[in-house]
Amino acid sequence: MVVPIQRVAIVGGTHGGELTGVFLAKKFQQFPLKIQRNHVETITLLANEKAITMGTRYIDTDLNRAFNPQDLANPQLMNYEQSIAKNIARRIQQEKIDFIIDLHSTTANMGLTIILHNSHPYLLHLAAYLTQINPNVKVLQHPPDYNGSCLINLVELGITIEVGAIANGLLDAQLFQETEYLIHAILDYIAADKQGKPPIASENLTFYRIQKKVDYPRNKQGEIQAMIHPQLQFKDYKPLYPGNPMFITFDGKEIFYVGDSTAYPVFINEAAYYEKGIAMYLTQKEKYCF
Amino acid sequence: MVVPIQRVAIVGGTHGGELTGVFLAKKFQQFPLKIQRNHVETITLLANEKAITMGTRYIDTDLNRAFNPQDLANPQLMNYEQSIAKNIARRIQQEKIDFIIDLHSTTANMGLTIILHNSHPYLLHLAAYLTQINPNVKVLQHPPDYNGSCLINLVELGITIEVGAIANGLLDAQLFQETEYLIHAILDYIAADKQGKPPIASENLTFYRIQKKVDYPRNKQGEIQAMIHPQLQFKDYKPLYPGNPMFITFDGKEIFYVGDSTAYPVFINEAAYYEKGIAMYLTQKEKYCF
Repeated sequence: MVVPIQRVAIVGGTHGGELTGVFLAKKFQQFPLKIQRNHVETITLLANEKAITMGTRYIDTDLNRAFNPQDLANPQLMNYEQSIAKNIARRIQQEKIDFIIDLHSTTANMGLTIILHNSHPYLLHLAAYLTQINPNVKVLQHPPDYNGSCLINLVELGITIEVGAIANGLLDAQLFQETEYLIHAILDYIAADKQGKPPIASENLTFYRIQKKVDYPRNKQGEIQAMIHPQLQFKDYKPLYPGNPMFITFDGKEIFYVGDSTAYPVFINEAAYYEKGIAMYLTQKEKYCF
Repeated sequence: MVVPIQRVAIVGGTHGGELTGVFLAKKFQQFPLKIQRNHVETITLLANEKAITMGTRYIDTDLNRAFNPQDLANPQLMNYEQSIAKNIARRIQQEKIDFIIDLHSTTANMGLTIILHNSHPYLLHLAAYLTQINPNVKVLQHPPDYNGSCLINLVELGITIEVGAIANGLLDAQLFQETEYLIHAILDYIAADKQGKPPIASENLTFYRIQKKVDYPRNKQGEIQAMIHPQLQFKDYKPLYPGNPMFITFDGKEIFYVGDSTAYPVFINEAAYYEKGIAMYLTQKEKYCF
């Protein structure tokens, strides 16, 4: 399918401590020719500059939950991230960006994950292509509880890249290089498709659909009472069967998964999600046939 | 050697984002009997409460570089961490604490490391005992560039525990349990030694002595130009031979170790050390015979 994408934005540092995206964006700013393709122009953007300088996820509130259209239109919402969200939204519109690649990293062992925020056929074909050229790439449905408030929601077409496990505030050379390779593959696809030569993709696409979020066990004061079980730590995308251990309390008591079907947990033990009440998301593994 | 230790302090949260120590200290506060021994009383302390609440390493400056005696005596130094350093120093003195266990974690793959801030025979014997009961325990000399400015420097006798690899802002159940086990072993040793029954230790002690610190390659603006090489990432305490790769630039150029002898790097890719100009410390492996 030929989609006439003209202008792409690569965004790093939507979360300031996620350095893979920050340093890739800086590299592309230094060598802008690397991300140009025939008839497709690409700009780079460092989203949350203050948080990048501070080395934190955000200053006042999570920037990547500030792009809900109602919030963007609300002049009352003017803390730091709410203000820059309005600026970024304006810039994406002014620059006529029709595709965004938003770069993230996670402390969960998500490997090379691409997150799709809608089921546009173009994105499904692109995802199928990316998993075909690198079978390690996983495709995840956008968590529905984000409620359209992410930066990627500024455009219909785009990809959120989520790589891990990596701690905040540091670079991992292998993940850096794999993420860069993925970005080039996306740009190549866009350019080839535009010329009516879409790269051949497989006939189906395996993806993970989010079923529910699971919080840590907490006491009445909201303090967590248990940790991710060692047998589940770093086991993102691996099957979790009913009866398998999920948590272990500080006193060593095991807590088991009581669902009635196999789940595939993702975002297990993401540091930024402790405050959001998310220990992991449970997903269902599905196959989409073209 | 019988050393009449009366009162021990277990300190968590000297760095606010290092949750292993924070949650162990909270657990001990909830179940104080777990850390009492015959004739040895133990208190717990959450050092940097504001940073713990914020989930950051520190608020104004690194608390664990604020305990230099000159700085403690300087009434001009009154930012948040400088102030609480003075309070903590006063409390340690008032409570007549004669042994500190300071709990830290690191994004480097340091496993279970104990750091010795001096060569007191008591500490060497204790370290030998701990490595005997758990051969995974590594013993590291305190980095000399800390200049006596760490919390542990408030006392002659004490142990800094440094566990990893773990990202800031999250808990790893296995490292949590292993750290707790180590703390109990230290308390058991202190109590047994006090009663004239020191646990039997081996006749020698392998430890790592810091030779130098190595910074990331940087440009004139101080921006880093390379990452830890994938072959070195997570290889703390493993031999690094002259000619082995150390860094890789953002463009994929390898940078090699040019020393003239085998080094054993530690604190490789510690997130908090990017701002301190430390990509790793190179150590020498030594054996101390009693």
